[in-house]
Amino acid sequence: MSGGVDWFEVSRRLHRRYEGKIEVLPKVPAFHRGHYAVWYTPGVAGPAEENAADPEASFHNTWRWNTVAVVSDGTRVLGLGSIGPEGALPVMEGKALLFKALGGVDAVPLVHRARSVGKWLELLELLEPSFGGINLEDIESPKCFRLLDEARERLDIPVWHDDQQGTATVTLAGLINAAKLTGRDLREMRIVLVGVGAANVALYRLLRAYGVPPENIVAVDSRGILHSRRGDVEALRERNPWKYRIAVETDGGWHGPKDGGIGEALVGADAVVAASRPGPGVIKKEWVRRMNRNAIVFAEANPVPEIWPWEAREAGARVVATGRSDFPNQVNNSLAFPSIFRGVLDVRARTITDEMAIAAAEELARFAEERGLREDYIIPSMEEWEVFPRVAAAAAAKAVEQGLARYPLSYEEELERARKIIRATLEKLKTLYQAGLIEPLPEEIEAAIRGAARG
Amino acid sequence: MSGGVDWFEVSRRLHRRYEGKIEVLPKVPAFHRGHYAVWYTPGVAGPAEENAADPEASFHNTWRWNTVAVVSDGTRVLGLGSIGPEGALPVMEGKALLFKALGGVDAVPLVHRARSVGKWLELLELLEPSFGGINLEDIESPKCFRLLDEARERLDIPVWHDDQQGTATVTLAGLINAAKLTGRDLREMRIVLVGVGAANVALYRLLRAYGVPPENIVAVDSRGILHSRRGDVEALRERNPWKYRIAVETDGGWHGPKDGGIGEALVGADAVVAASRPGPGVIKKEWVRRMNRNAIVFAEANPVPEIWPWEAREAGARVVATGRSDFPNQVNNSLAFPSIFRGVLDVRARTITDEMAIAAAEELARFAEERGLREDYIIPSMEEWEVFPRVAAAAAAKAVEQGLARYPLSYEEELERARKIIRATLEKLKTLYQAGLIEPLPEEIEAAIRGAARG
Repeated sequence: MSGGVDWFEVSRRLHRRYEGKIEVLPKVPAFHRGHYAVWYTPGVAGPAEENAADPEASFHNTWRWNTVAVVSDGTRVLGLGSIGPEGALPVMEGKALLFKALGGVDAVPLVHRARSVGKWLELLELLEPSFGGINLEDIESPKCFRLLDEARERLDIPVWHDDQQGTATVTLAGLINAAKLTGRDLREMRIVLVGVGAANVALYRLLRAYGVPPENIVAVDSRGILHSRRGDVEALRERNPWKYRIAVETDGGWHGPKDGGIGEALVGADAVVAASRPGPGVIKKEWVRRMNRNAIVFAEANPVPEIWPWEAREAGARVVATGRSDFPNQVNNSLAFPSIFRGVLDVRARTITDEMAIAAAEELARFAEERGLREDYIIPSMEEWEVFPRVAAAAAAKAVEQGLARYPLSYEEELERARKIIRATLEKLKTLYQAGLIEPLPEEIEAAIRGAARG
Repeated sequence: MSGGVDWFEVSRRLHRRYEGKIEVLPKVPAFHRGHYAVWYTPGVAGPAEENAADPEASFHNTWRWNTVAVVSDGTRVLGLGSIGPEGALPVMEGKALLFKALGGVDAVPLVHRARSVGKWLELLELLEPSFGGINLEDIESPKCFRLLDEARERLDIPVWHDDQQGTATVTLAGLINAAKLTGRDLREMRIVLVGVGAANVALYRLLRAYGVPPENIVAVDSRGILHSRRGDVEALRERNPWKYRIAVETDGGWHGPKDGGIGEALVGADAVVAASRPGPGVIKKEWVRRMNRNAIVFAEANPVPEIWPWEAREAGARVVATGRSDFPNQVNNSLAFPSIFRGVLDVRARTITDEMAIAAAEELARFAEERGLREDYIIPSMEEWEVFPRVAAAAAAKAVEQGLARYPLSYEEELERARKIIRATLEKLKTLYQAGLIEPLPEEIEAAIRGAARG
C-alpha cells in the first residue's frame, strides 16, 4: 500500500505486540485502604443510595456522563463484510482509542451476537443505564437504518450510527467547501450519489435538511439510477423505506426518470459522492468528463476509491476527496464522532439531530476555510488538534438552541471545556510515553508509518 | 462512622468532584496519523481479518485477554437491597477500579435491566465475544445461584460471582489460619453458618471440597437451624436446591435435627461464620459464651457486623473477623477477585473451579502465616502488595494442574508475569499522580481517611 507500508501486516504485528490498544485506569487517587474505602465499600454506598433515589445522579457520580458504548454485531466491517463480533473487535477498540485521543470520551468496545433488530434493540435498552451515549458501527444495511431510528426513539441517551451520520457529516463539510472553492452554492449544485447504503442515505437526509432540493440529486445503486418507476422500487417500500423515499423524492433528479447507470447520471453533474464498493474503475474517467466544469469528485470506498484521484483529475475534476489518509482531502469520520460526542455529552443532549450534524459540518468547513481553501485542502486534517473543541462547541451550541440540552453551555463555554478535557488526555498520554510506560513502536516502523501517513 | 469519618458523605462528595473514578486510555502510541492508520483504518483490517478466520485470535490482538465485565442488575447492592442498575453503577465502577489497581485487570462496569435468569443469560451470551471473563455482582438470591451455574455451563470464558466465590475464598483463608492459630484442624472443627445466602452457600461448598464433613456444619437461616425435616425444606427442593442440599446433607450438623436458632446452634461450636444481616445483636454475647474454648467468630455483615468484635471477645472469642476495614482481620474480597482473575486470564483458564478458589485461599493463608499469625492477623491486608501476584500464581497453577489452562504457565512464571503487570499499573498511576494529572484529594480528607482506614 501507500508509501511502501503494508498497513495490514504492520497492524497485525503491532496489535499482537501490544495485545490490544486501550486499557481502563483509575482517574482518582487509589493508593491505600483509605482511598479504597471511599471508592468502594463502605463509602460507595453513599453515591449508590443517591442513585437509587435519583437515577439521573449516575451522570454526576460515575463515569457515565463521559462514557459511550461502541457497539457492533460485525455484519459489515470495513470492506470485509460480515466477519462476526470477534472480527469487529479490533475495529471497535480502535474507535474507542480515537474517541479518547481526539475527543476525551471514554468509549467501551462492545461486540455481540444479536442479529435481529429486535434483539439488538433489547440489548441496547438493557444496557442503557451503563452509558451516556451509544455509537453504532459496522452494521449491514438496511438493518442499520431501522436500528438507528428505533434506538433513537426508545433510548433516552444519544444514539449515533457513525457509518451513516459520521460519514455524512464530514462529506457535507467537504461539499460545502468544494462548492465555495469553485464559486458555487451547494443548494444549487447537481449532485450524484453513487451507492445508496448507510453513508449516502444519511448524506441525502443531511443535504435535504441543508436546503438542497431533491430534483438536484440523482441517486444510483447497483441496478442503476433510482426513480419512482423503476421495476424494483415498489418492493423497496417495505424492505427499505429509506431508499424508497429517495427514489420517490428525487425521481431520477434533474434528468427525470431514466434508465442507465453512473455514466448516464453524471451527464451535467457538478458533484459526485460515491460510497459504494472498492475500485478502481467503478467510476470511469470518460464518465467524469461528462460532468460540468470544475467537477467535484468524492470517491470514498476503502481501501481503494471508486476512481483513483489522479484519474479523476485527468478527466477534469477540480476537487477530489477520498477516504484515504494518504491522499489529500480525506473524508475522515474521526473529524466528527469524537468531538460531536464531546459536545453532546457535555451539555447532556437528549439526542443528536441532523441540525446538530449540520452545525458540526459547517464548523469543520469554517475551520478549513479560515486556513485557506485549496484544491487539496477542503477538509481539516485530524492532526489539526484545534478543530476538535470547535466541532464540540458547534454541536453543543446547536443542541442548546434546539432545546435538547439538559445543561446549557454557550459555544465559548463548551469550547473552553472541550479544550481542557481533550488536552488532559493528551497530557496523560505524553506523560506516560515520556516515562517509558507506553512502549514506543519499533523505530523502523515508527519512521515508516510517520512518513507514509503524510501521503 | 469509624475514625470520625462519615464514609458515605465523604464518598458522595468525592464521587461528584471527580465525576466517576475510572477512564479508558490508549496503552499504545497514539499521537499522529501514522499511529491512527495502524490502530484504526486502514491497518485494523489486518487483525480484523485475522479474527474472522480464527475468533480465538481476538484474545491476542485486542484487549480481550485482559478484560472482565463487572455485571450487575442492582437487585442486591451492598446492604441497600434492590436499588436498580443506576444504583449499582458506582459500586461496579469501584470494583473495576480495584480490578485494575490490585490485579492489573481491565474491567468494565455493566449494569443492566435484565431481570429474569433467562434474559440475564442471554445478555451474557450475546456479549461474550467482547470479554475475557465475567464477574457477576450484587444479585439477589437464589437467582444468583442458578445464574452462576448456568453461565458457567454456557459460556466459554470464566464466570465468577464474587458475592459467592470471592467472599467464600477469603473466609476460607481466614478459617484455615484461625484453626492453625488455635491449634485445630479445620476439617475437624464444628462450624456454624449463620445466613444461607450467596456467601455461605458458596462457603459450604468450599468447606466440603476442602474436606470438612457435612455433620460438622450447622446452617442457620432466618427460620432457624436447617435440617431435613424442617417444615419448609421440601419447598426448597425446587425453589432453592442449593439451600436444600445443605439442609439434607448437614441435617442439623452434630446436634442432629433440632428446632432452635443461632443460640442453640452455637452450643459446642468451634467457629461461626455469619453472613446474614447488619447487627449488632444478631449474634448475642451469651450465645458466644456457649461455644467451645478458643472460639472463632466471623461476623461479616456490612456496614455493622452481626456482633461487635469487642463483644465477641468479651464473650470468650479468641479470633474475630469482620467485613470492615477499620477492624483487624477484614474478610475482604479484594484480596481474591483481582488476583484470581489475573491468574486465570494469564493462563486463559476455561473456568474457575472450587479447587482453584481453594488454592487461592490456601495461598492467602500461607502468606499471612509466613508473616506470623496473631489473633489480629489471620488474613493479609490489601496493602500487602506482594500477596496479589502470589494468589494469581496459585490460581493459575491449579488451573494448569486441572488441565483447564489454554496457556500453561508454572507458578513461578505466573508469579513473575503477575508482578510485572500489576506493577505497571501502579507505576502509571504514580506517574500521573506525581505529574499532577490525577488530582489529589483535598488535604483534610486525605489526612482523615488515611488515619481512619488504619483502624
